[in-house]
Amino acid sequence: MRELQLDLPSGRGRRAAIETALRDAIRTGRLGGGTRLPSTRTLASDLGVSRSTVVAVYEQLGAEGFVIGRHGSGTEVATVAPVVGAEDDDLLEPSPTWDFRSGEPDASAFPRRDWLRAIRQVVSDPSDRALTYPDPRGHPEVRAALADHLARTRSVGTTAAGIFVTGGFAAGLGFVADALRRTGIDHIAVEEAMLPMHRMVLRLAGLEVTVVPVDEEGIAVHALADSSARAVLVTPANHYPYGITMTAGRRADLVAWADAADGWIIEDDYDGEFRYDRRPIGALQALAPNRVVYGGTASKTLGPGLRLGWLAVPKPLRQPLLAAVNLRAGVSVIDQLALADLIQSGRLDRHVREMRRRYGRRRRAVVEALGDTVPWFAPPAGLAGLHLCVPTPSLVLEEAILARAEAADVGLLGLCNFHRAPPHRAGVTIGFSRPPAHAFDAGLERVMAVFEAATADMAS
Amino acid sequence: MRELQLDLPSGRGRRAAIETALRDAIRTGRLGGGTRLPSTRTLASDLGVSRSTVVAVYEQLGAEGFVIGRHGSGTEVATVAPVVGAEDDDLLEPSPTWDFRSGEPDASAFPRRDWLRAIRQVVSDPSDRALTYPDPRGHPEVRAALADHLARTRSVGTTAAGIFVTGGFAAGLGFVADALRRTGIDHIAVEEAMLPMHRMVLRLAGLEVTVVPVDEEGIAVHALADSSARAVLVTPANHYPYGITMTAGRRADLVAWADAADGWIIEDDYDGEFRYDRRPIGALQALAPNRVVYGGTASKTLGPGLRLGWLAVPKPLRQPLLAAVNLRAGVSVIDQLALADLIQSGRLDRHVREMRRRYGRRRRAVVEALGDTVPWFAPPAGLAGLHLCVPTPSLVLEEAILARAEAADVGLLGLCNFHRAPPHRAGVTIGFSRPPAHAFDAGLERVMAVFEAATADMAS
Repeated sequence: MRELQLDLPSGRGRRAAIETALRDAIRTGRLGGGTRLPSTRTLASDLGVSRSTVVAVYEQLGAEGFVIGRHGSGTEVATVAPVVGAEDDDLLEPSPTWDFRSGEPDASAFPRRDWLRAIRQVVSDPSDRALTYPDPRGHPEVRAALADHLARTRSVGTTAAGIFVTGGFAAGLGFVADALRRTGIDHIAVEEAMLPMHRMVLRLAGLEVTVVPVDEEGIAVHALADSSARAVLVTPANHYPYGITMTAGRRADLVAWADAADGWIIEDDYDGEFRYDRRPIGALQALAPNRVVYGGTASKTLGPGLRLGWLAVPKPLRQPLLAAVNLRAGVSVIDQLALADLIQSGRLDRHVREMRRRYGRRRRAVVEALGDTVPWFAPPAGLAGLHLCVPTPSLVLEEAILARAEAADVGLLGLCNFHRAPPHRAGVTIGFSRPPAHAFDAGLERVMAVFEAATADMAS
Repeated sequence: MRELQLDLPSGRGRRAAIETALRDAIRTGRLGGGTRLPSTRTLASDLGVSRSTVVAVYEQLGAEGFVIGRHGSGTEVATVAPVVGAEDDDLLEPSPTWDFRSGEPDASAFPRRDWLRAIRQVVSDPSDRALTYPDPRGHPEVRAALADHLARTRSVGTTAAGIFVTGGFAAGLGFVADALRRTGIDHIAVEEAMLPMHRMVLRLAGLEVTVVPVDEEGIAVHALADSSARAVLVTPANHYPYGITMTAGRRADLVAWADAADGWIIEDDYDGEFRYDRRPIGALQALAPNRVVYGGTASKTLGPGLRLGWLAVPKPLRQPLLAAVNLRAGVSVIDQLALADLIQSGRLDRHVREMRRRYGRRRRAVVEALGDTVPWFAPPAGLAGLHLCVPTPSLVLEEAILARAEAADVGLLGLCNFHRAPPHRAGVTIGFSRPPAHAFDAGLERVMAVFEAATADMAS
């Protein structure tokens, strides 16, 4: 035992120190399985501690299975697999200094004071409603607040009974996919060039995924109808990443398809709150509350770190969805009630209005700068969302822009980063919402320099 | 249009009011599909508003798909499915006044001040690390804090790379089940008399579930070995609901089974922090970090409303688990970092120590009261966890106790509430952690009255 080199503190910590040293020695393999340990008397004397201390240590390690007391033959080390150290692989690449990748809001604008105030409100509530196992669909108060909020801001037609609170949209999508499978649907269609992560979530749930083209009015419903899919995932308010608002005619066609196919439409309303030329266009769900699963999220209005999302679900899907969600939704009830507080106090609306003002200004700045800088730029029709999709005259130019961006430490995504379907559209998205306010102007100058240099590359 | 009975406010809100009234009328079916709307001029005059207001309303409803502008023939109502109101069915039964159902800690003891302090700390941090899309496995800082914490408090051998943060244990279990299926395992064993919800989660993930008996030392490993299962879910620190601590010999047998079967052990360490007669016995994971998926949770130490749990995962399962989790874990990064703060500041340890003291006192009071009241009561060997499993001499007595409890508005669970396997054990669990402190003594008196009355029923 002397090789353990126990560095024992004096006084109270000695028992714990001996125990830890022995456990570590066994776990790392320094003391192999079958090794006979000294008798308690010997070890106590060696270490200068009382025998009862060593007895206690052997007893604890025995209960944990690290050592085995053999009747009449002392104590020996059990066979334990050693811990192997492993490097932590960092999944998230470091962010570029000038980050205009689409998909995130300005994190620095998170309403910290409002959120903290809401949490304090909830935690100080003398009732313990925020602290026990929750209704797996979400706290009833939050579901009621969301039903009202969605009716008011997105024209969604539902009641508290139709609302499910989830840990963000991707989590909700996974549960909906599970629920679809439980109702016998195993084939879903998606829009061309969608978020790769969402497709992965659908595949994970065991669904076959078919990609449907998108034209200037939205998803090509005739192509959808030609498939055997009985569900479709769409982004009607602002196609991601193309930035197309689905027209009223196409919305009607899509609902007619769902009725005819006895199918379901999943509406990913990821940034429907942000429309700059007019009031936001109501959700597709409003046209067919019995055919559309509406999905919204706090990721763009508050922040994705909160992992808060919600679904408005047609009645026939509620039971299957409940079975799929069960207790797995995993959304803190404190956070849920804080969200309800933000809604009911009007603070969420106020924050969204303020951010709409700021993002609208940023979007105008981007369009203006592109107009000034990029000869081939044509301003897009819609004025919505947190990113601008800039079509490029060629795939080569898209690649050139992305290469220039990387070299300049500017974060941009090209349509190559999404599931682009042939015939290939080329383009680059500018996520103007992402940089913190203080870095926006300087960042935009760098983005323009990237576009300019890449355009010059082509000309030369 | 007069039948719409528009109650219009004067001034600014009029456009919104007209739009809402029209949308609601269409949505509820009062204005059916194909109905021709008045011209903008007529309606404006009828309502006493400017024509541009009505044009804006029609335009907005047109973009949303509620009305269709026909060239040369005005505007008509689109065919829209009506919203059907639905009653919200309350899933959660009202709690009994004297609630001793096992499974929850005392919600009133949630460390509100500590939690709020931690949230304030995180939200006030000028870096935005809590506010962007997270690493799906959990924030690196939290994973490192948990790896240290689990090594110190539960002897778990892992590194930050092995930790996954999930929205409670059930969510983690669901993801682990998905991951097992991805590695080709489709059959899992569980302990007799387990939590029904966990079995449902496993089935949901598509796993075949086999129930294995439990004896006085823990799960019957020979029966497990006879099955074709290559994974098993166990509660070694404190079998739920029987309250048996798995012996060192049985732990060694179980690990040997996993090695021989090339299988996985999932350790549900739901209340391992609570041991009253000795220091907590280390996790089974410590014996075989390469064979055990360790699962812990804040549900018993802080509160289930937080929906915070964690897994320590052997290296070969990390990739499949990452694929299963993806962004679906849905745990607020703010909450994750608050947990890290509680761990690093020592506040979590302090809270657990304090609760261990309080629950230990409660447990002694329950054992003493049972000894005084119930002639057939034999005190259990172990002193762990947040509930006491009281075996009854017969199934009939178990039923009688539950019937008496219900009549007295006392919450108790019997082994009939779990998946009891034949030969049937009979018994009742007393979840002494659940009542708030001020209601404990009075509640315990009522529990004893229930036991006494049921015992008398049997004698008569």
